[in-house]
Amino acid sequence: MDKNAMREAIIAAKTEKGMSWEELGAAIGMSPVFVCSAALGENSMLQPEADKLCEALGLPSTVSKALQAYPIKGRRAATMITDPLVYRLNEVVMVYGETLKEVIQEKMGDGIVSAIDFTMDVEKVPDPKGDRVKLTLNGKFLPYKRW
Amino acid sequence: MDKNAMREAIIAAKTEKGMSWEELGAAIGMSPVFVCSAALGENSMLQPEADKLCEALGLPSTVSKALQAYPIKGRRAATMITDPLVYRLNEVVMVYGETLKEVIQEKMGDGIVSAIDFTMDVEKVPDPKGDRVKLTLNGKFLPYKRW
Amino acid sequence: MDKNAMREAIIAAKTEKGMSWEELGAAIGMSPVFVCSAALGENSMLQPEADKLCEALGLPSTVSKALQAYPIKGRRAATMITDPLVYRLNEVVMVYGETLKEVIQEKMGDGIVSAIDFTMDVEKVPDPKGDRVKLTLNGKFLPYKRW
Amino acid sequence: MDKNAMREAIIAAKTEKGMSWEELGAAIGMSPVFVCSAALGENSMLQPEADKLCEALGLPSTVSKALQAYPIKGRRAATMITDPLVYRLNEVVMVYGETLKEVIQEKMGDGIVSAIDFTMDVEKVPDPKGDRVKLTLNGKFLPYKRW
Amino acid sequence: MDKNAMREAIIAAKTEKGMSWEELGAAIGMSPVFVCSAALGENSMLQPEADKLCEALGLPSTVSKALQAYPIKGRRAATMITDPLVYRLNEVVMVYGETLKEVIQEKMGDGIVSAIDFTMDVEKVPDPKGDRVKLTLNGKFLPYKRW
Amino acid sequence: MDKNAMREAIIAAKTEKGMSWEELGAAIGMSPVFVCSAALGENSMLQPEADKLCEALGLPSTVSKALQAYPIKGRRAATMITDPLVYRLNEVVMVYGETLKEVIQEKMGDGIVSAIDFTMDVEKVPDPKGDRVKLTLNGKFLPYKRW
Amino acid sequence: MDKNAMREAIIAAKTEKGMSWEELGAAIGMSPVFVCSAALGENSMLQPEADKLCEALGLPSTVSKALQAYPIKGRRAATMITDPLVYRLNEVVMVYGETLKEVIQEKMGDGIVSAIDFTMDVEKVPDPKGDRVKLTLNGKFLPYKRW
Amino acid sequence: MDKNAMREAIIAAKTEKGMSWEELGAAIGMSPVFVCSAALGENSMLQPEADKLCEALGLPSTVSKALQAYPIKGRRAATMITDPLVYRLNEVVMVYGETLKEVIQEKMGDGIVSAIDFTMDVEKVPDPKGDRVKLTLNGKFLPYKRW
Amino acid sequence: MDKNAMREAIIAAKTEKGMSWEELGAAIGMSPVFVCSAALGENSMLQPEADKLCEALGLPSTVSKALQAYPIKGRRAATMITDPLVYRLNEVVMVYGETLKEVIQEKMGDGIVSAIDFTMDVEKVPDPKGDRVKLTLNGKFLPYKRW
Amino acid sequence: MDKNAMREAIIAAKTEKGMSWEELGAAIGMSPVFVCSAALGENSMLQPEADKLCEALGLPSTVSKALQAYPIKGRRAATMITDPLVYRLNEVVMVYGETLKEVIQEKMGDGIVSAIDFTMDVEKVPDPKGDRVKLTLNGKFLPYKRW
Repeated sequence: MDKNAMREAIIAAKTEKGMSWEELGAAIGMSPVFVCSAALGENSMLQPEADKLCEALGLPSTVSKALQAYPIKGRRAATMITDPLVYRLNEVVMVYGETLKEVIQEKMGDGIVSAIDFTMDVEKVPDPKGDRVKLTLNGKFLPYKRW
Repeated sequence: MDKNAMREAIIAAKTEKGMSWEELGAAIGMSPVFVCSAALGENSMLQPEADKLCEALGLPSTVSKALQAYPIKGRRAATMITDPLVYRLNEVVMVYGETLKEVIQEKMGDGIVSAIDFTMDVEKVPDPKGDRVKLTLNGKFLPYKRW
Repeated sequence: MDKNAMREAIIAAKTEKGMSWEELGAAIGMSPVFVCSAALGENSMLQPEADKLCEALGLPSTVSKALQAYPIKGRRAATMITDPLVYRLNEVVMVYGETLKEVIQEKMGDGIVSAIDFTMDVEKVPDPKGDRVKLTLNGKFLPYKRW
Repeated sequence: MDKNAMREAIIAAKTEKGMSWEELGAAIGMSPVFVCSAALGENSMLQPEADKLCEALGLPSTVSKALQAYPIKGRRAATMITDPLVYRLNEVVMVYGETLKEVIQEKMGDGIVSAIDFTMDVEKVPDPKGDRVKLTLNGKFLPYKRW
Repeated sequence: MDKNAMREAIIAAKTEKGMSWEELGAAIGMSPVFVCSAALGENSMLQPEADKLCEALGLPSTVSKALQAYPIKGRRAATMITDPLVYRLNEVVMVYGETLKEVIQEKMGDGIVSAIDFTMDVEKVPDPKGDRVKLTLNGKFLPYKRW
Repeated sequence: MDKNAMREAIIAAKTEKGMSWEELGAAIGMSPVFVCSAALGENSMLQPEADKLCEALGLPSTVSKALQAYPIKGRRAATMITDPLVYRLNEVVMVYGETLKEVIQEKMGDGIVSAIDFTMDVEKVPDPKGDRVKLTLNGKFLPYKRW
Repeated sequence: MDKNAMREAIIAAKTEKGMSWEELGAAIGMSPVFVCSAALGENSMLQPEADKLCEALGLPSTVSKALQAYPIKGRRAATMITDPLVYRLNEVVMVYGETLKEVIQEKMGDGIVSAIDFTMDVEKVPDPKGDRVKLTLNGKFLPYKRW
Repeated sequence: MDKNAMREAIIAAKTEKGMSWEELGAAIGMSPVFVCSAALGENSMLQPEADKLCEALGLPSTVSKALQAYPIKGRRAATMITDPLVYRLNEVVMVYGETLKEVIQEKMGDGIVSAIDFTMDVEKVPDPKGDRVKLTLNGKFLPYKRW
Repeated sequence: MDKNAMREAIIAAKTEKGMSWEELGAAIGMSPVFVCSAALGENSMLQPEADKLCEALGLPSTVSKALQAYPIKGRRAATMITDPLVYRLNEVVMVYGETLKEVIQEKMGDGIVSAIDFTMDVEKVPDPKGDRVKLTLNGKFLPYKRW
Repeated sequence: MDKNAMREAIIAAKTEKGMSWEELGAAIGMSPVFVCSAALGENSMLQPEADKLCEALGLPSTVSKALQAYPIKGRRAATMITDPLVYRLNEVVMVYGETLKEVIQEKMGDGIVSAIDFTMDVEKVPDPKGDRVKLTLNGKFLPYKRW
């Protein structure tokens, strides 16, 4: 079973069970963002969590195997870029990319923020003037090696 | 004075004064991220803050005028995209774009997170295994209008 | 049922029933432009309207479910861009984009016109020298937040 | 004097005089959108209006000559596309392009809406929940010739 | 029946009947260039001509219906651009585009030549030094509206 | 003197003398289209005609030398492609490219129409419903060699 | 039978018969380069040679018909460009393109070398330091028409 | 002196002396194609030949130094690709790339033809039906290493 | 059997047998990197090794035949470029490409490092601060021929 | 002094002093590859090494300051990609990217090889059949965080 078939199987089961990513994350003890990314085929899971996810959704072990496979990442990027929600994130990088480089490197030195040793969180922030969304990205700072 | 000349004038004065974006933000009562983005030419300031920034840096009122002008945004995007720090942010959008759409829209309904009514914060998180960087994006959720 | 299957089912039923977008809009109490965009898979509908649309076209509830799903938007953009009708709209943005920025921001301040809190209308304007088409776009002005 | 020099001369004079596009349009009896587009170098003017515009701004006849020259259009398109205000317009074409084709051609037959025999209007619509912007595009419908 | 199926049905029938575009044009009283473009899916026909074409080729009314549908145009452009015959036409636009703008606008004023209210003709010109091909494009001149 | 300087010199002199391409073509016994293309730097002239053109415009022999140099062609293509007049020509190739291949090769066999052994003509066609422009392209047919 | 099916049929038969392009060329009296290009779908053959090729490979007349059809050329270009053998040829054009223009036009005048009235030959050149490959391209020189 | 200045100096001196690439090649004992490529900045020369070339053209030793520098190759590729002479070469690679791979690898095994250990020759072939140009490329065959 | 089917067959058998690339390389006496590249369809094998690989995996001779076929290389490049592991390698070329050119050519003269007469090795380097990966590329230096 | 001016100053001084990257690396106690990359503007140096480099080359402290600035990386990537030496490196990534992913992740788990905590070495390997170049890349393995 490849990642595409896995993805469809998970989405279908999730819809039928009426479970949210939040609930699935709670069921296996992981972040809903990570669980969703693995289900969409952009991250791999270790066996215990993969098995738990399949159990929660009533899916066979072939799906768990597929969840454990190492994915080729970013394959949906071209498809998603026209979507307004995704484009707004891209716009933040286009408009604020140089700003973030300036501010981060002034604080931390010459280096980067890892997108590998990295976590991300999504939170709903109720607001009388209209609810807001808070995204928190937390990555290890990696200084450029000089050799 | 156009945005390019303004940008160079501010960077030069900031370097000479040895002030950080943090200090400049404190001096005028705004976020260091926003101040930096305006100095780089990606945001406009209102007159009081623009004047204060120029005062802090010993710059003439022509710089303040340029800071108040409305910028064409994203003009440095193509130049910055090969830089590893900026690319890592772009990679997050490529790898997690669909995940964020799934998680956000499940929580909030069909809509987007504004990149306009939006704030962003950069924080250093000391960690014995290597310091980390925390980025917080906070944007208003805008539901798609159905008419 | 995914958005592609939904789209084909709706177009087929609409053709067979000989109903126009105008009539379908009237039947469910929404704008024909919005109804058409949802039928093509570029917007989602709430259940009451989705059900009414399916009823008007004699389509099963699986189509209504698909209409309520949140779409990935803009997926047909690359296919449509060579079509002369669509290219003319694109040309307006290419030729008048900076003009609109100038005129709108002079009037409203530094910000954008929302494409989310947004409605659009198409009207035929009879004219003895050749009929005309009037497009009306109405979007909320969103000022850039300074923080 | 080429279009770039003309453009800078007009913007500079307009800023110094503190006149809006609205006022300039009124001064010469044309739409502010058209006047702005000609000033930016995307349209040509006839001599009487070009002369009046120069008179209003205290500019010499070389500027009027440059205003009358036929421009190469769309040259700023690549520069403007990353700007959020312009991108939102582009997004409307990407998301609603096929919808507009469907709705317009159902109403008018197989053909296009002219971007040449065409006018455009920008209006501020005060609204207690946040002011809105109304764009009106009005173009001649041109049926495809069958021969 | 979509445009692709229609296209294959017409080409197959035309090959079997051994009829040329010239003959098909004559049979229905239209230009062979237009008939061919409609058969390939780049133009729509009115019912009488569509029916006559199907009659001439012994094709069912579903093909006639497909011929009357309004096409999304230019979908084969990317596929054809490497073909030497098509590239030569493209080369003419690349090499002579600015020349044609200069010559046409000097003669006609600021405007364009319509590709909608437009006819095209292909003629073989026998020549002892090698036969030639004469293409004639005839389009309505549309002056830019100034408003 | 390179082609850019030559081009500017010729346009400036032509504007000052108030001569049209038609008149310049007549003055040196060549087609106005060809003369214009050479003046813009997309074709080379032989010495007699280059000298005559310079004489007609009161330009020095360095301009004639530059006219005789062999140009790198198509260098303005990317700049011109957003201009509506040029785009319409490009659109004809995108929409009708395959049609022309079909019609020409059915008539002439497998081969191409030369864009080298090639002439082009622009004609104004007065019409009560709006004047038209007739472009005539005449190129040698070159059959593919089979070896 | 379209060009893709033809191509597969020929490659399969050629592999089974164990015949080289050299042998196939000899069998039908044509260059192995041309025969191969026609078999791959990039050139058309006349009936006698197409029939002989099918006879040599034991293929039915439908393959011969497909060989006689006029191809859309260059369709495999994007697929082949990453292959090192093909990229080296492309590199020669990138590195030596201007050189060849200089040397050829100095010798021959302003014009091009035809890729239509053109033959190409591949030869193995044994060499003790490592065998070499000699490609010979022979094309008609076409002077630019001045009119 | 960088490669651009060197290039201009050589072209200017060559034009003034009225020497051809053929004559310059003979003067220094190298192929005219190679000499031209080095003069244009796409190859480096060893000192003896670089000195001889400068002597032949009356140029100072700074030009010889620049000729000996190792170039960044292919920098003019994007500029030349629209030129018809260069495009025809590119077209040969697009149309015949796969053919050449087939024919060469059948003859030589799995590997490539070097564009580094490589020579190229241009020859005029007089022909009563129109002169022809013969290009000969001769490159070492490099088999893929299997390890 | 084409390269895609071969690839799937090998990966499936390898997974079932639970063999690593290391073990497969040892089994047939070749580098694991090369074996993997051939299995993925980016290199060809000679018959003895291809047969041994099929024997080790219990695969039929049709797979061996497919392994011996000469591949079109680089076909997965566009799919892999968004994957972070592959992008990091690409980033090394983007950031250090000019550096490597400087350092290599200063040491070796004007020329290139072959990617054909070339081997590559991957080694795990245990490190208490986190294991490392050592890639060793070893290619023949090819000096540019001057002729 | 910006990175471009710094780069030119260093290259000029290095050429005049006749020092190699090897010698400069030895003089300041760093790898020649790293020193070259910093001199070209793709890495930053700490003050002690930057000062030593300037001392070795007789350059003022403004150059040392520029060496310590944090660069925007990869800005020369588009310029270098057509150069054969750099392209060969790129080709290795295109042809072997998926292979390296397979082999590395099988050995190390799901993760990447850092291009930040990373060193690179260039070595000349004398060989009677032609000298070789050995590139060694050594990067920290970073496992994807699962959270």
